[in-house]
Amino acid sequence: MYERPSIRRMTGYVPGEQPKGPAIKLNTNENPLAPSDTVIQALSEITPAMLQRYPDPQATKLRQAIADYHHCPLDQVIATNGSDELLRLAVSTFVDPGKAIGILNPGYHLYHVLAEIQNCPIARVNLEEDWLPPADLAKCWNDAGVRLAFIANPQAPSGLLLSRDQLAQLARDLEGVLVVDEAYIDFVDPSVAHDFAGEIGRHPNLLIARTLSKGHSLAGLRLGYALGAESLITPMLTKVRDSYNVDAIAQHLGCAAFNDMKRARASWQLVREERDRVARELGDLGIVTLPSQANFLLASIPSAFGDAQTLNALLASQGVHVRWFDVPRLRGRLRISIGTRAENDQLLSAIEASLVVRTRRAS
Amino acid sequence: MYERPSIRRMTGYVPGEQPKGPAIKLNTNENPLAPSDTVIQALSEITPAMLQRYPDPQATKLRQAIADYHHCPLDQVIATNGSDELLRLAVSTFVDPGKAIGILNPGYHLYHVLAEIQNCPIARVNLEEDWLPPADLAKCWNDAGVRLAFIANPQAPSGLLLSRDQLAQLARDLEGVLVVDEAYIDFVDPSVAHDFAGEIGRHPNLLIARTLSKGHSLAGLRLGYALGAESLITPMLTKVRDSYNVDAIAQHLGCAAFNDMKRARASWQLVREERDRVARELGDLGIVTLPSQANFLLASIPSAFGDAQTLNALLASQGVHVRWFDVPRLRGRLRISIGTRAENDQLLSAIEASLVVRTRRAS
Repeated sequence: MYERPSIRRMTGYVPGEQPKGPAIKLNTNENPLAPSDTVIQALSEITPAMLQRYPDPQATKLRQAIADYHHCPLDQVIATNGSDELLRLAVSTFVDPGKAIGILNPGYHLYHVLAEIQNCPIARVNLEEDWLPPADLAKCWNDAGVRLAFIANPQAPSGLLLSRDQLAQLARDLEGVLVVDEAYIDFVDPSVAHDFAGEIGRHPNLLIARTLSKGHSLAGLRLGYALGAESLITPMLTKVRDSYNVDAIAQHLGCAAFNDMKRARASWQLVREERDRVARELGDLGIVTLPSQANFLLASIPSAFGDAQTLNALLASQGVHVRWFDVPRLRGRLRISIGTRAENDQLLSAIEASLVVRTRRAS
Repeated sequence: MYERPSIRRMTGYVPGEQPKGPAIKLNTNENPLAPSDTVIQALSEITPAMLQRYPDPQATKLRQAIADYHHCPLDQVIATNGSDELLRLAVSTFVDPGKAIGILNPGYHLYHVLAEIQNCPIARVNLEEDWLPPADLAKCWNDAGVRLAFIANPQAPSGLLLSRDQLAQLARDLEGVLVVDEAYIDFVDPSVAHDFAGEIGRHPNLLIARTLSKGHSLAGLRLGYALGAESLITPMLTKVRDSYNVDAIAQHLGCAAFNDMKRARASWQLVREERDRVARELGDLGIVTLPSQANFLLASIPSAFGDAQTLNALLASQGVHVRWFDVPRLRGRLRISIGTRAENDQLLSAIEASLVVRTRRAS
């Protein structure tokens, strides 16, 4: 056995299933709409020479497009092979093995896996009954010697949004690096007027991770980025990152995506409207959801539907895929990505039908 | 400062320059020919849905194409975001921080950087005068407690090829993992009948790294892979790798590349012929090269041309980019990638012209 002992002991992250064939795929929080035509058009602009030659190692043109979008300096931007890479880079750059990494429980399991890969103890802080972090979160993490903490906002899997003030206070109080993972930020209702990216210049320990997977319908392309103080971005950009981490096609299509946001913005609005409708219709069926600002709902499955695991399997057998997590506080719930209107209708019908079947059996 | 102390101390890898505008680019060992039409054609087969959805996390179809090419089981293959990612994954998976990593000196500097990122001491073994490793290489590395050693074959930057027997003996004798980096293997003369990939099943500690960057003219796509015992591949594939490390486009184009090797094979033959010609013509100018089996030549610059650094700068000023390394044993040499016939002609003319200029000045 050549594996490091810590690697041997750990279990890898298991992504949601990618079902083959036609399916209503509401299990991995992809965008319900296809990417913009501008991005598809950009594919046809890829020349043989762009594939033959190494890409720009620092992805400068793409990073400039991102910097322009966020009105921040180029030096505060790094582009990555999906935001997964950014999360890993943050650990490799800022946390020595043996030092603690802060996560919330329940939360995105990948944070846990990344800490294990680096052989770091995990300072896990349980969410309160209302699915929000405790008021003394920074103190809990500081007391545990946390060098870096991950927090998703909107949170996963609850979809709840922490306010700019809450996060700014956390960044100020935390002694380590705070990574705010904004994978779902594009789906926040504009009426909330949430803009935490504008805080970047104010906190030397703040990294904001973004991805084009959800907001831009580009999960297949693997393109993410981070914003942060130059002193945080530079070591990731110039030392720890693989030399050519973002390929030539992703650099080109990424620029196209920022160049035409119309389709993306339309998809965000669709998700918001459908999120409200699906929550309402689930509520009519007696299924309570948390008030989500993301492109998914965490739905509490009442006993009329049997247990959540069984309902999950039943839906899957009908080609409707949602996500069930076998961990405390989530076993009685399903995480449901928001699809197109038609997909959501099929989901709702399938759930309602399961209730009818159970009611008949019971009678 | 939030960086780990070891990251703060280290210097990142500096890739060869990607000059803008028209240039004779013989500095980063890219393939002189464009990729095959089949690969370019495959670009037009990318559907919006392939970008919208997450790709197959394990890249199974691509890995199967690779397994078929090498006549090995699927479980012995991992696909990566360039072979850079594979080299990093090997370190993260098999070497605890503080344990030694074996490299040759001079060698590919990235191996050194990867060891530093993992905070591992480096067991550096100097090449002999003939640019080959010493006979007691395995003992040197074992005595240093090496858990993983990198060896490029053909070697970089000499281009020399170690035989199957030499490498098999090294794999048997080494107590850690041996990573044989075959980035340049496609350019080996078929008359040498070198096939080390066939050794995979015989060594539990052997990983062979490959890339499509050079052999398939796909440096811009970022696609590499490794072959190895299932016990080495599995932890990298299921635990340490980023969840979706190879994007949907790279998976699709990679399959296309293995589906039609004609263009790639033609490029290998062109490189071999031109490698011999350039070596001969450089020899006629008094510039000695090592007998390379790669797509580059390591050329010893005699004093008639001034020093190698000056010649490098002079060539660059004329738009001919080769590579000069500011490290012992390489300061008097240039590493010259093999280009198209026309590119090589321009290189040779530029070098010859520099001699004439110097001779005139001297007289």
